[in-house]
Amino acid sequence: MNSSPLIEQLIEAFRCLPGVGPKSAQRMSLHLLERNREGGKKLSEALEEALEKVGNCRSCRTLTEEELCRICASGSRNHKLCCVVESPADIFAIEQSASYQGIYFVLMGHLSPIDGIGPEQLGIEQLLEKVSKEGIEEVIIACNPTVEGDATAYYLAEQLRPSGVVVSRIAHGVPIGGELEYVDGGTLSHAFSGRKVIEQNQG
Amino acid sequence: MNSSPLIEQLIEAFRCLPGVGPKSAQRMSLHLLERNREGGKKLSEALEEALEKVGNCRSCRTLTEEELCRICASGSRNHKLCCVVESPADIFAIEQSASYQGIYFVLMGHLSPIDGIGPEQLGIEQLLEKVSKEGIEEVIIACNPTVEGDATAYYLAEQLRPSGVVVSRIAHGVPIGGELEYVDGGTLSHAFSGRKVIEQNQG
Repeated sequence: MNSSPLIEQLIEAFRCLPGVGPKSAQRMSLHLLERNREGGKKLSEALEEALEKVGNCRSCRTLTEEELCRICASGSRNHKLCCVVESPADIFAIEQSASYQGIYFVLMGHLSPIDGIGPEQLGIEQLLEKVSKEGIEEVIIACNPTVEGDATAYYLAEQLRPSGVVVSRIAHGVPIGGELEYVDGGTLSHAFSGRKVIEQNQG
Repeated sequence: MNSSPLIEQLIEAFRCLPGVGPKSAQRMSLHLLERNREGGKKLSEALEEALEKVGNCRSCRTLTEEELCRICASGSRNHKLCCVVESPADIFAIEQSASYQGIYFVLMGHLSPIDGIGPEQLGIEQLLEKVSKEGIEEVIIACNPTVEGDATAYYLAEQLRPSGVVVSRIAHGVPIGGELEYVDGGTLSHAFSGRKVIEQNQG
């Protein structure tokens, strides 16, 4: 017998979060009610506001509350370079590395016929149009190196070929700081097949 | 450069949850926005409603949206037996074990002078009044077996002594299913000092 249907309902609601089971959901609910009502109120409001206002960028399909996301709207980015990623989280990661100055295009998934996700759901038509209309010179495909990501990358490259744009894919190999011993076989095989000749100074 | 201030705000808001760092907060935010807006809406509403309506039970101080929690209001519980716990989560755990049929009293913490938590904050006056007015026959102290919990239990026992009520404390020792090898020293020492003579059949 529990003491409150509203608390039960809150615990149940917290379980929609990824990686949150019944124990964590209970801990979160009681923590907010007992010790951080202020934070809970902010969370409830931030969530409501984000769900209401955040949609997709008209140009790159990432999540944003504006019609055009900040990156697409920025004058300081290189609009001739377009990186195709699977999800907005990938943009967060790439932006954090501060290694890329172009714009993006978000597929919001990868090709997965079994789940009914085809080229239409990924907005590939929109990407092709964007490439041809906005004078993009290079498309960098940054799909995840999974079976579905590889299939999506291959399909994209095929579709982009007629437009004559340069199509590249980010490098896969041993991560920096990683130890060879702990790297899986698939990554190692990629690292070998993608090896580069070290330029030698000619004496 | 991130694409949306509202998403940033949501990520920040998720960090008020226990055990949620920046990465998890980002994952939760994007998961809800991309894949489970329905669940996010439910969470936001459940949180708002719980924060607005859930208060403390007039009799036992646990969290509830009613004036008297379900356990205190129940006719099928033994109202002569009162278990004192530190938090509502403890009630959840005890109720799940279905091993207790009495009522509760929630301290909402433990004595901790350094944080300004004294007998007043723990409602000990209210507990003493409840014991004397409601004809409680036994108070079972189920504070956590920590330094502060022990101090709280000791203080409670002292305060309850004049009322003549039976005061007991739940047993501490090796957990069922636990392996002796991995049990810490404090627990083992409790287990030894709390040992019981096995009754032997007299032949």
